[in-house]
Amino acid sequence: MVTVKDGERLDDLLGRPGKIIQSDDVFSFSLDAVLLAEFVWVPIQKGQLVDLCAGTGAIPLFLSYRTKGTITGVEIQSKLVDMANRSMAVNRLEERIQVVEGDVKTAATQLGHARYDVVTCNPPYFLANETSLRNQNEHHTIARHEVLCTLEDCIKTASQLVKPGGKVAFVHRPERLLDILTLMRAYRIEPKRMQLVYPKAGREANTLLIEGSKDGKAGLKILPPFVVYEEDDTYTEEMRVILDA
Amino acid sequence: MVTVKDGERLDDLLGRPGKIIQSDDVFSFSLDAVLLAEFVWVPIQKGQLVDLCAGTGAIPLFLSYRTKGTITGVEIQSKLVDMANRSMAVNRLEERIQVVEGDVKTAATQLGHARYDVVTCNPPYFLANETSLRNQNEHHTIARHEVLCTLEDCIKTASQLVKPGGKVAFVHRPERLLDILTLMRAYRIEPKRMQLVYPKAGREANTLLIEGSKDGKAGLKILPPFVVYEEDDTYTEEMRVILDA
Repeated sequence: MVTVKDGERLDDLLGRPGKIIQSDDVFSFSLDAVLLAEFVWVPIQKGQLVDLCAGTGAIPLFLSYRTKGTITGVEIQSKLVDMANRSMAVNRLEERIQVVEGDVKTAATQLGHARYDVVTCNPPYFLANETSLRNQNEHHTIARHEVLCTLEDCIKTASQLVKPGGKVAFVHRPERLLDILTLMRAYRIEPKRMQLVYPKAGREANTLLIEGSKDGKAGLKILPPFVVYEEDDTYTEEMRVILDA
Repeated sequence: MVTVKDGERLDDLLGRPGKIIQSDDVFSFSLDAVLLAEFVWVPIQKGQLVDLCAGTGAIPLFLSYRTKGTITGVEIQSKLVDMANRSMAVNRLEERIQVVEGDVKTAATQLGHARYDVVTCNPPYFLANETSLRNQNEHHTIARHEVLCTLEDCIKTASQLVKPGGKVAFVHRPERLLDILTLMRAYRIEPKRMQLVYPKAGREANTLLIEGSKDGKAGLKILPPFVVYEEDDTYTEEMRVILDA
């Protein structure tokens, strides 16, 4: 018996059978969560995964359809941790997915160093000082702006958490490509696979997916472009494949 | 009256009316030259442009269809400098394009600091030690491997040559993306526009086009993907537009 509180909704997980508890008060998951969960390499039968900046647990939920491993989410906002863990119960995933309250900056001390096969992260996209885009609501601000953790915090902690050879994957804005690549290399996550997501054919990329390997060999592959919408605003075939997974 | 020497050919410049002197002894221009010449920002009516690692002058020739400015090519191999300048004479471009013999490492001393609107460069793609790909012929080796100049030499010199706010554009392999971005920023060429070139839809990118601005503001745009071939190995529409320019 799981409580869905006042103001909360039980939303669909796109084409998947599961549900996620969301509300207007907090940041709802975006397409970026499912894109990252589909992009990242995962161990299929078993393994230990971490999702940093887990929010209401969308990425762990999407990952649960691809891996039988256990997934730990790290989220700093207790309201979101509570929502996420109730979602896991709704989906009977509480044995396999746990979202813990914690600060990305100290997550490796909390969870243990070099123990994880995979770390994912959909970090806040905007700099703390990009005020024109800041929302009034504190929950949204923390999810979207680097007020409580920076990209560097996320990459540094991911590097500490992951085993040698383990994978670290991020989704971010293309404008931050330089920062991501530079910081990944600085923290010994060698960038190995990158994919750019374009809203439509002929447009500039608006989303960046990147995966690196801890202490991996240099050599970045750039995967085929991923296009979300057709000219008539319906989903492309490749997007429908992901949504119907 | 221009001499075409034994073993040399007068080749077409893809769809353009001009000609270029090439020979089997030296590296022939590839699609990458025309892609870079079409990608880079150019001043239309006048201006000063430099092409580093100019070879037989393909990029200056392609650029001459987009700008009325003057173009200086820098090439270290005297045999290629001679071929290039005869090509300029064939095309009656000797007033506007000159290829000078020079070393990329000292080209700013030779040509002058902070004097140029645009610098282009199609540098050697392979590390000096990537021996499996090394050709026997010295001319090919110098053109394709970093034996006489490295990517860092090219970026450092481009930064010295270009005016504040001027543009610097490179074509390279996607595997070197990290190196390019890191070195551009290190030498104050802020990456502003990037385009990935895919041989066919659904394949990994095999070519990277990137342009930066000297002391420019941060903010990289990733242009729509460029695809060269259709599934049936004919050129795509966007490639035909470039070839028929």
